[in-house]
Amino acid sequence: MIVVMRMDAEEKHLNDVVARAEELGFSPHVIFGKERNVIGLVGANVKKDSVCVISEMPGVDNIVPISKPYKLASKEVKPETSIVDVCGVKFGGGEIPIIAGPCSVESEEQIVRSAQMVKAAGAKILRGGAFKPRTSPYAFQGHGEEGLKYLAAARQETGLPICTEVVNPRNVELVYKYTDMFQVGARNIQNFALLTMLGQTDKPVLLKRGMSTTIEEFLMAAEYILSEGNQRVILCERGIRTFETATRNTLDISCVPVVKDKSHLPIIIDPSHSGGHRQYVSALSKSAIAVGADGVIIEVHPEPDKAWSDAAQTISPEHFIQLMGEMRAVALAVGRYM
Amino acid sequence: MIVVMRMDAEEKHLNDVVARAEELGFSPHVIFGKERNVIGLVGANVKKDSVCVISEMPGVDNIVPISKPYKLASKEVKPETSIVDVCGVKFGGGEIPIIAGPCSVESEEQIVRSAQMVKAAGAKILRGGAFKPRTSPYAFQGHGEEGLKYLAAARQETGLPICTEVVNPRNVELVYKYTDMFQVGARNIQNFALLTMLGQTDKPVLLKRGMSTTIEEFLMAAEYILSEGNQRVILCERGIRTFETATRNTLDISCVPVVKDKSHLPIIIDPSHSGGHRQYVSALSKSAIAVGADGVIIEVHPEPDKAWSDAAQTISPEHFIQLMGEMRAVALAVGRYM
Amino acid sequence: MIVVMRMDAEEKHLNDVVARAEELGFSPHVIFGKERNVIGLVGANVKKDSVCVISEMPGVDNIVPISKPYKLASKEVKPETSIVDVCGVKFGGGEIPIIAGPCSVESEEQIVRSAQMVKAAGAKILRGGAFKPRTSPYAFQGHGEEGLKYLAAARQETGLPICTEVVNPRNVELVYKYTDMFQVGARNIQNFALLTMLGQTDKPVLLKRGMSTTIEEFLMAAEYILSEGNQRVILCERGIRTFETATRNTLDISCVPVVKDKSHLPIIIDPSHSGGHRQYVSALSKSAIAVGADGVIIEVHPEPDKAWSDAAQTISPEHFIQLMGEMRAVALAVGRYM
Amino acid sequence: MIVVMRMDAEEKHLNDVVARAEELGFSPHVIFGKERNVIGLVGANVKKDSVCVISEMPGVDNIVPISKPYKLASKEVKPETSIVDVCGVKFGGGEIPIIAGPCSVESEEQIVRSAQMVKAAGAKILRGGAFKPRTSPYAFQGHGEEGLKYLAAARQETGLPICTEVVNPRNVELVYKYTDMFQVGARNIQNFALLTMLGQTDKPVLLKRGMSTTIEEFLMAAEYILSEGNQRVILCERGIRTFETATRNTLDISCVPVVKDKSHLPIIIDPSHSGGHRQYVSALSKSAIAVGADGVIIEVHPEPDKAWSDAAQTISPEHFIQLMGEMRAVALAVGRYM
Repeated sequence: MIVVMRMDAEEKHLNDVVARAEELGFSPHVIFGKERNVIGLVGANVKKDSVCVISEMPGVDNIVPISKPYKLASKEVKPETSIVDVCGVKFGGGEIPIIAGPCSVESEEQIVRSAQMVKAAGAKILRGGAFKPRTSPYAFQGHGEEGLKYLAAARQETGLPICTEVVNPRNVELVYKYTDMFQVGARNIQNFALLTMLGQTDKPVLLKRGMSTTIEEFLMAAEYILSEGNQRVILCERGIRTFETATRNTLDISCVPVVKDKSHLPIIIDPSHSGGHRQYVSALSKSAIAVGADGVIIEVHPEPDKAWSDAAQTISPEHFIQLMGEMRAVALAVGRYM
Repeated sequence: MIVVMRMDAEEKHLNDVVARAEELGFSPHVIFGKERNVIGLVGANVKKDSVCVISEMPGVDNIVPISKPYKLASKEVKPETSIVDVCGVKFGGGEIPIIAGPCSVESEEQIVRSAQMVKAAGAKILRGGAFKPRTSPYAFQGHGEEGLKYLAAARQETGLPICTEVVNPRNVELVYKYTDMFQVGARNIQNFALLTMLGQTDKPVLLKRGMSTTIEEFLMAAEYILSEGNQRVILCERGIRTFETATRNTLDISCVPVVKDKSHLPIIIDPSHSGGHRQYVSALSKSAIAVGADGVIIEVHPEPDKAWSDAAQTISPEHFIQLMGEMRAVALAVGRYM
Repeated sequence: MIVVMRMDAEEKHLNDVVARAEELGFSPHVIFGKERNVIGLVGANVKKDSVCVISEMPGVDNIVPISKPYKLASKEVKPETSIVDVCGVKFGGGEIPIIAGPCSVESEEQIVRSAQMVKAAGAKILRGGAFKPRTSPYAFQGHGEEGLKYLAAARQETGLPICTEVVNPRNVELVYKYTDMFQVGARNIQNFALLTMLGQTDKPVLLKRGMSTTIEEFLMAAEYILSEGNQRVILCERGIRTFETATRNTLDISCVPVVKDKSHLPIIIDPSHSGGHRQYVSALSKSAIAVGADGVIIEVHPEPDKAWSDAAQTISPEHFIQLMGEMRAVALAVGRYM
Repeated sequence: MIVVMRMDAEEKHLNDVVARAEELGFSPHVIFGKERNVIGLVGANVKKDSVCVISEMPGVDNIVPISKPYKLASKEVKPETSIVDVCGVKFGGGEIPIIAGPCSVESEEQIVRSAQMVKAAGAKILRGGAFKPRTSPYAFQGHGEEGLKYLAAARQETGLPICTEVVNPRNVELVYKYTDMFQVGARNIQNFALLTMLGQTDKPVLLKRGMSTTIEEFLMAAEYILSEGNQRVILCERGIRTFETATRNTLDISCVPVVKDKSHLPIIIDPSHSGGHRQYVSALSKSAIAVGADGVIIEVHPEPDKAWSDAAQTISPEHFIQLMGEMRAVALAVGRYM
């Protein structure tokens, strides 16, 4: 932690800060600059909150934290990319697995058909929502456990592992019984009660970035899961909220190289929620592969126009088949495969 | 719902949209314009998602929704401001109640002293967190039920109603036993499981806007509570996330007149979390009163420099007493009182 | 400047950075931390750009600048608030002057009538645009020099000093001949050629914050003017661009206390452009006074519904008269006057 | 234009709006809905500003514009992508040209060497700044005309066309004498005086999106140039300002498919300014190719660590050579070539 003093700070102010820092258990090191002085505070394990108060002392301009707030998610702790295995499907290696399926599980017939179609096209994991967090209380909220059973039937039928969202700590045990991978949606990125419970399970977690979550906070949300003992976390960039309204969200494609630079966790991209329109899905999926993502998750429905949710951004099986071919070409171009 | 056709749309495209809309149960009305045609779709209770698909039909430029997604929160449904009563303290009328207290409940002694001090200065409700949602898993997470008991002791001692946060649907019953008003924090604004449960209780809810929640989504989150039967919702603007980093969040002061224009729900302001620095609390509190807020919630601690959380933005009892006087003057200037 | 090393940085990396910093003319001071080491670099007047490259050296995590990029605008250089005098109207003291008038100068009759009306209500300066920067090339761009002559006629008639926008370095001399205060619009906040020329004149400049300008960049834009020798700069907060669309822009009311904390320059607020709707102008104007702004600039038109530009956010003279009374009450409540 | 009435609007309100619209020259069409009524207004060429006032009439909820504010830039007017030819280098066709070079022109020797190096690697156009818009008045502002002469020398030496920024309407003629393509920087995206002048020249313009410019405003800025008669505009996405600080800006990669959907203008990507760090340049450049960009502009310097500006995001010639190979592979994978 570095304390930056004001240009007009008096010697007394500097001494007061040094004294307070020592009280708090730090070893302070003063650097006398040409324009202003700074104080380096050495010493870990000090409560950040009580330190913050130094920022409000007379003569202090501001405080600069040095330690990263996340540890287990950090690349400094584990330099090589982690491989997260979901029933044999590996994220973080040379292969780029595709997760596909409808937004909502609507019926057994619909999800089984979806599973068959996306499997035939080459998808490795089936997605589908049984519990749907919806902005409006009047929108379809999902079939709940019934939907989980339909997902299990689709797995039975096709052999595809399944990935489904859990939105409520009360349902973790229930969802655990059926799913192969938990999905945490963007709205729950800071639902710490949920993250903590998932950290205590032994199934992988697909953690979606929130609409206004910084990459640092994203890694700290992952840290909640990791610090409980569950190391199988896959990050998912799905667009952030900005002033631009032409797309549903703004896909922060740079998130991939930044995460690769700072963390060992694999990261995938969701082009469906970020773009919000089916005509943008192909272009964004290809850019996801090219930028180095470890996977892509795409909304596909046997009859997209009749989808109960997210219809506008859902593509058809025919569109998906063509896109799989296009993504494969890009994967090869960047030295990976699908 | 208005369907805007492209300038180069063919007659066939128009006819297809009309046909599809009729299939979906709408009465379509075509308006032939100079540059492009638009189709007005009349007919409520149609699933929004399946309609969205019209936006992807050939010849369609975009779709404009007309109905507001919230109803019970709307001023169109109830033109006069609602008065929400919390144990006799009224929000939404001529009086502007102040909620004050520390960020976290640290000990019985600390919260009782805080309660006595803020009561003496004129605060009407005591705030204090027993369950703390923290960005880092390594930060203090609150005393839990123990903290709720300390809050109850403070109420016993001072007669001030209490307001405390609930972060997990599993704890709604527990918190219910102790609190006079639930607080939903910014991170839980779209924790719909939690909102639904609170809508089924008979205690008022202080609903904080999320960091990236639009005002429309804010009212829809309130709608989750209202639609379950609980009409006692107080909104709280606490700053949104923008590119500006000089403050912890950007206080969206305009949220107050906008909400007053669109909804009957009372709205208060949190100058502590928005500014993030104690030297900004007074200026922002006074602007809150002047802009028409129905209350202010302020972090006050007997010894702010030793607060376990949010120390930098917490003010001292002396500061608070002075600020109460300043806010009173502004309240009178705008025809209200404290 | 502080160089933060990675946790896994080797000794060699540290030594390389120290050596490179010395080459660049710095005195490096290493602080050995528990988790990672940091290097304080002392020595001013080093080109920032060439230093940045240290951030890309092996073993370096990131670089933290310490010096503020602005000097003349800084409160550290001049602790007391500057009073900027515009033909006898003082910004930055106990009085809070109001600037009012139409968005565009439409005709001599319109601007003279506007001037008479706002003067009668108590405004101290007349605003009106002769050169209009418009997002669309097909919108009214202003009357140019003709408009300046009308403004001069209005000043002649009423004695009110005038404030008008200059958008093009080519027109600085022309506008200089007529105006009492230059206005730099939000779109020109980083039009450095224009700022530099205005810095070489001897007339005050009303500098509006850009839609996506941080407060630090805002002060650096002011620095362009100050560093050329013109010390008479008044800042104007007029809303920033965020994800919220209920208002035209998001009024960053906290900008006022932040600027007061960091700079000696006076700052005013524009509630018309930030809110974008006339029904929000009164609430925002009162909050501006309460938060400590040194002035308010309001769009007023004799017949707002017929205004050629910004009609939706322009208020009528009757509305303005009432608002003046309301603002006066708030000014008194915060110990100032109008 | 669609006028949406409030649910509680009275018949009188509706009639008043209809009457006012007719006064303004519209043909109004009322659609009576279940919950609320809407009025379609047919009739182009009406001043948008005076219409806005309808939004403030009693009983009106809001107004929805239907016409796009840009015409010449629209794909509806010209469905096929425009090919913009810069001295034989074509943007918008099957080939993806790369523009490369240093941020600033520092010396004749530096820019000639840069030109030789990037040409050898396969770049088709040389970039380099002679006039630099800098946030700080104390930063290097460019060599001005001297820099333009060095650029001309580099062209002479290598045959590469040159692209350089113009920041001031006063310098358009000067820059015209030397450059093959004007660059308009992000800060000047709404410098309409400059755009208008460039629209009157016969040289192509590389128009960079502003930090907070929506895609619609971006196309309207292009419209300023097109409407003056210059059809040779190339758009450039270079990152927008968001809350995320891990990158200098947030590359809005979706801008490419959105622009392709709405406009016939070619669009390229700048991975250097968006990422802000050289280690992100390769990943972002490849994603640019994959997403369908018509070109990439990259900062390359013979000795990046010694660059006078943007050093941290500038790559070396060796890095550039390798990246060219990687981009070529991705270009082939998406059916294009370099």
